[in-house]
Amino acid sequence: MIKVGVIGATGYAGEELVRILARHPQVELVALTSQSYAGKPMAEVYPSLTGYVNLNCEDQDVSGVVGRSEVVMVALPHGHSAPVAREVAARGKKMVDLGADFRFDLADTYQKWYSHEHEAADLLAQAVYGLPELHRRRIREAWLVANPGCYPTGAILALAPALAEGIIDPASIIIDAKSGVSGAGRGLALGSLYAEVNESVHPYSVGRHRHTPEIEQELTRLAGRDVVVSFTPHLMPMTRGILSTVYATLTVPLSPEQVREAYRRFYRDEDFVRLLPEGQWPHTKWVYGSNHCHLNLTVDGRTGRLVVVSAIDNLVKGAAGQAVQNMNLLFGLPENLGLDYPGLCP
Amino acid sequence: MIKVGVIGATGYAGEELVRILARHPQVELVALTSQSYAGKPMAEVYPSLTGYVNLNCEDQDVSGVVGRSEVVMVALPHGHSAPVAREVAARGKKMVDLGADFRFDLADTYQKWYSHEHEAADLLAQAVYGLPELHRRRIREAWLVANPGCYPTGAILALAPALAEGIIDPASIIIDAKSGVSGAGRGLALGSLYAEVNESVHPYSVGRHRHTPEIEQELTRLAGRDVVVSFTPHLMPMTRGILSTVYATLTVPLSPEQVREAYRRFYRDEDFVRLLPEGQWPHTKWVYGSNHCHLNLTVDGRTGRLVVVSAIDNLVKGAAGQAVQNMNLLFGLPENLGLDYPGLCP
Amino acid sequence: MIKVGVIGATGYAGEELVRILARHPQVELVALTSQSYAGKPMAEVYPSLTGYVNLNCEDQDVSGVVGRSEVVMVALPHGHSAPVAREVAARGKKMVDLGADFRFDLADTYQKWYSHEHEAADLLAQAVYGLPELHRRRIREAWLVANPGCYPTGAILALAPALAEGIIDPASIIIDAKSGVSGAGRGLALGSLYAEVNESVHPYSVGRHRHTPEIEQELTRLAGRDVVVSFTPHLMPMTRGILSTVYATLTVPLSPEQVREAYRRFYRDEDFVRLLPEGQWPHTKWVYGSNHCHLNLTVDGRTGRLVVVSAIDNLVKGAAGQAVQNMNLLFGLPENLGLDYPGLCP
Amino acid sequence: MIKVGVIGATGYAGEELVRILARHPQVELVALTSQSYAGKPMAEVYPSLTGYVNLNCEDQDVSGVVGRSEVVMVALPHGHSAPVAREVAARGKKMVDLGADFRFDLADTYQKWYSHEHEAADLLAQAVYGLPELHRRRIREAWLVANPGCYPTGAILALAPALAEGIIDPASIIIDAKSGVSGAGRGLALGSLYAEVNESVHPYSVGRHRHTPEIEQELTRLAGRDVVVSFTPHLMPMTRGILSTVYATLTVPLSPEQVREAYRRFYRDEDFVRLLPEGQWPHTKWVYGSNHCHLNLTVDGRTGRLVVVSAIDNLVKGAAGQAVQNMNLLFGLPENLGLDYPGLCP
Repeated sequence: MIKVGVIGATGYAGEELVRILARHPQVELVALTSQSYAGKPMAEVYPSLTGYVNLNCEDQDVSGVVGRSEVVMVALPHGHSAPVAREVAARGKKMVDLGADFRFDLADTYQKWYSHEHEAADLLAQAVYGLPELHRRRIREAWLVANPGCYPTGAILALAPALAEGIIDPASIIIDAKSGVSGAGRGLALGSLYAEVNESVHPYSVGRHRHTPEIEQELTRLAGRDVVVSFTPHLMPMTRGILSTVYATLTVPLSPEQVREAYRRFYRDEDFVRLLPEGQWPHTKWVYGSNHCHLNLTVDGRTGRLVVVSAIDNLVKGAAGQAVQNMNLLFGLPENLGLDYPGLCP
Repeated sequence: MIKVGVIGATGYAGEELVRILARHPQVELVALTSQSYAGKPMAEVYPSLTGYVNLNCEDQDVSGVVGRSEVVMVALPHGHSAPVAREVAARGKKMVDLGADFRFDLADTYQKWYSHEHEAADLLAQAVYGLPELHRRRIREAWLVANPGCYPTGAILALAPALAEGIIDPASIIIDAKSGVSGAGRGLALGSLYAEVNESVHPYSVGRHRHTPEIEQELTRLAGRDVVVSFTPHLMPMTRGILSTVYATLTVPLSPEQVREAYRRFYRDEDFVRLLPEGQWPHTKWVYGSNHCHLNLTVDGRTGRLVVVSAIDNLVKGAAGQAVQNMNLLFGLPENLGLDYPGLCP
Repeated sequence: MIKVGVIGATGYAGEELVRILARHPQVELVALTSQSYAGKPMAEVYPSLTGYVNLNCEDQDVSGVVGRSEVVMVALPHGHSAPVAREVAARGKKMVDLGADFRFDLADTYQKWYSHEHEAADLLAQAVYGLPELHRRRIREAWLVANPGCYPTGAILALAPALAEGIIDPASIIIDAKSGVSGAGRGLALGSLYAEVNESVHPYSVGRHRHTPEIEQELTRLAGRDVVVSFTPHLMPMTRGILSTVYATLTVPLSPEQVREAYRRFYRDEDFVRLLPEGQWPHTKWVYGSNHCHLNLTVDGRTGRLVVVSAIDNLVKGAAGQAVQNMNLLFGLPENLGLDYPGLCP
Repeated sequence: MIKVGVIGATGYAGEELVRILARHPQVELVALTSQSYAGKPMAEVYPSLTGYVNLNCEDQDVSGVVGRSEVVMVALPHGHSAPVAREVAARGKKMVDLGADFRFDLADTYQKWYSHEHEAADLLAQAVYGLPELHRRRIREAWLVANPGCYPTGAILALAPALAEGIIDPASIIIDAKSGVSGAGRGLALGSLYAEVNESVHPYSVGRHRHTPEIEQELTRLAGRDVVVSFTPHLMPMTRGILSTVYATLTVPLSPEQVREAYRRFYRDEDFVRLLPEGQWPHTKWVYGSNHCHLNLTVDGRTGRLVVVSAIDNLVKGAAGQAVQNMNLLFGLPENLGLDYPGLCP
């Protein structure tokens, strides 16, 4: 049994980690930290966990938690992971960080988009961007995994095969993403109130969302040349799910079936990425509560554009599920251990 | 591995059965029938099942399906289970019926409330009402289990300890229940359309819902005398979940803690029924997707009434999950096999 | 044109007042106060009002606002209305208070349920409980109207005819109410977050909600004897609407039609209260955005109970709309001026 | 008073017409037709209208209805308007058609996208495309107005100023639209069920939705050259509202403020189109139930793209409200008569 500590256990991503880890056959939860609920039983903060988690939330004593754990899963706001990573490094443990601190190759990118000095820039070279479908081998050998953002997960999986095959113009990419409100976390914000979200959809951070550079870094890697994208996130009246609708101009005329074949090939061995049958467009509900990414695509002959659509659960494949997938890789376990179940539908 | 056939697999209860059984460690799904989708892959009808279920839906050839199965799970509208039961009886197989046909001790009760001649009244005496928390022993020895209705499950679990202890007046019971719309099934009905359900709550079948006699039968058993209840179901703008708010007059003055103690005792050994800490009222979301029933209660000193509230997921503990719980009992398996996970929250 | 000031204009009830008053043919809005948004254009706080309201929010300078207004509408949390009422009294203006401060005949009741010393108990005798269907004449002659709470409006309208006619046992009343989350206001509370409310229903303040004594005061008046009720509010996954399901034992056997006739008679001349055709149960969506209360009822012969169901929009008939109805009465205007439109459906 | 007949009154667009017309100060409703509910009081089909509409639904006797009306508003599925138009023409009455039959300059376009022979191609030249912000003068003089589709209304209003000013490349336009489910109508369809729509978002008809040619026709008119667009509609878990997120490449570098100025100028005199303050992106809830279109935009300097977002209520500005706006123009009434109220928010 792997001893796992969760730092930041009572936000939505943290709770989802706990929910998954509590049923993981190779995991023993040894610590759950929470600034807001220290001292309180986790099962009182989230009564859904009654009978599954007997731990109390505890203070964020990083040293103590790292000491007791073989791996720590960190679900803190960005800017708080550096001291944890240093402690983990010092003690030779492992870490999956669900925050943004270690996602970038360059500290500059982080500092520009997050307006925040990076406090562990020296560790960036040791961190691996934790999208297993792209970086599986490097993750297996790492000690520090930077779990991708929710939007980047959906967007990159939608575009990877097309960029890897060179069939789209990297300058033409537009990503229109629609997210459930749990992505905004459990913090008390006017924009997260039921009466503000219900019966409403709206864009936000248009052209300047912090997930943009993360998407561009990975797409650049895939394309082998600089990629700049238009990325527009929207808030939806739903709790979970991200749908990414991606537009790009084909570099050569291809039939939908030719492009489908490229996608099929690229994701051939992937458990968690599924190209749906022709004509069946992804619905976020179909991956609700699961670690799967559903994809479909078409070529619009009138405009010469490829349209790809991906659906994920932002809290699972977009956060906690993918983190456990990475943890499995870190420990040489089957990648889908504890994650192998379908979406909850209806 | 137990060979299981699901008859009526593409309604919401049927699909939920398939979702649970597909991950059950002791089950092999051998047949899924569907009138609407015969010939179509189940995973195209419910793309959430992609990668988990490879069967095609097939015609309702009862004889064939029973032949191939050790147990059939039947999720048909009421009035259609009699021929299946006869076939199962003839071949010495087992059956869990999610419909209403075998829930009543007396064919008369069925016929009065369902306005339908019972076609297998002779089998009623062999059927066991499948609420494991009340009838576990008899279920273990049965071949035919009548899975309870969704509303009765929530209502009976809320009232059983109080009636068994004789602390409430059986003539005073009022059950005000609130259900998600998946309870109405996947049929095309005006009242199930999103634009009709959203931002709306309304009662229906006030004083004459078909689950009433089922509730009364079991409460009568518990009370040892005739119980007649006021039962009002309401449709809620949500997909899953039933909350039952139950009112009854105490026969003797008791403190909330005394009543809590009676409930604690009654459900002491139950995995799936949980009395929440004092002051924490059940939320349907906390049992979303799980087989648990959450309970809490208070005594209103001003009125002398006990108020008990129960929450279940109507498709799991209220239908498919409880059916699998019953199947586990039929085959001597651990009762929570394949069902042992918490609610999906948020 | 009546000069109207709104004190507390940026909560949900306040905004709804502004929305209605902005289109009222006899009203000139002269002041909108807001603690949170002072200095900001109201139309930026609520962009829905763009083009309809040009005022900026201003500080809560009670004296100044009362000075400029003929009537002030007060939408503050309880405990803040006393100084406004004194100012209004001193200057001979009028006031409709949407808070609880002036709803009770006895300061003791207020103090007991709100745990708060009443700071203007001497004015209670001059305040009229603003349910026009019961107290129209007194409202017309008053200067201070205490607008009813949202739950009491729905519950009292459901019960008034039955109690006035003496056909139900006042000791048997149970009120099970279901409210949209806008009733909890625009404050930042965990329980009002979308991801907490969505797909969930739960009771709260069982047996001790502050609207209980208000309901009992008015029912007692109608019954001519002390009435104590069981009242259970529930939070629903919807923005607007309250459905009240009310149970009471008939004192004499009556047919549903006899009771319907009593209700029809009682509300004969009421514009805003409508008994729906037999068998058509109220849906909250049908009164969405309107000042109407829809009612229906049945007699359950098996239990001897009357079941009445009422639906209102908690922000309109349950708050701002009723306040404008009261304002119309205060100024001798047609009672439905500015309020005469149907629900927004679907 | 203008005598108005509504043909197809019980679908969602039809009901919305009735709701608006019932309160229109210059309208007398003389006939409501419905295939499904002929003979039934309209207020029983839509109880929200209780007290506002006393008419019964009647059979679709076109000749009779046209005879009694000065103008007919037609809310039928496409392909059914031709005989109505002929009758209206023959009798010299007026008509606003909410369907697609008369929206195209060329019968060929209609026939290609709707796979349906046009039965009144000779009348196309007399029909005016009823987007008042573009064609006000011609509408005033017409007898036959083709009310725009819901998606085209949002998309065209978002793009008109940019195309009229020539500041975007017409070949670069991508329209990503998100619609509430009421746009799919009141028909019984699996995809409109609450349990299918809730917690889900998905695209449909990607690259081949029938509103595409309508958008292209009007954009072509504005650009003065052929425009072909990528248009992707998405179904959202909400009842009302369309948000259109539009992407296009600027032909010359412009600051956001310069583009804002162009939009401000273009819509200077428009009551129903509002450019929100900088940084405040449209929310569909802000126009809920109103005839307004909210707009905002930005220029993404990194990609050289203009991003414009529009929000409308699909049933009001996207259907019934715009139809009444057109009717007002046909009769020389103030354009906003009966439509001059803000969105219902929250």
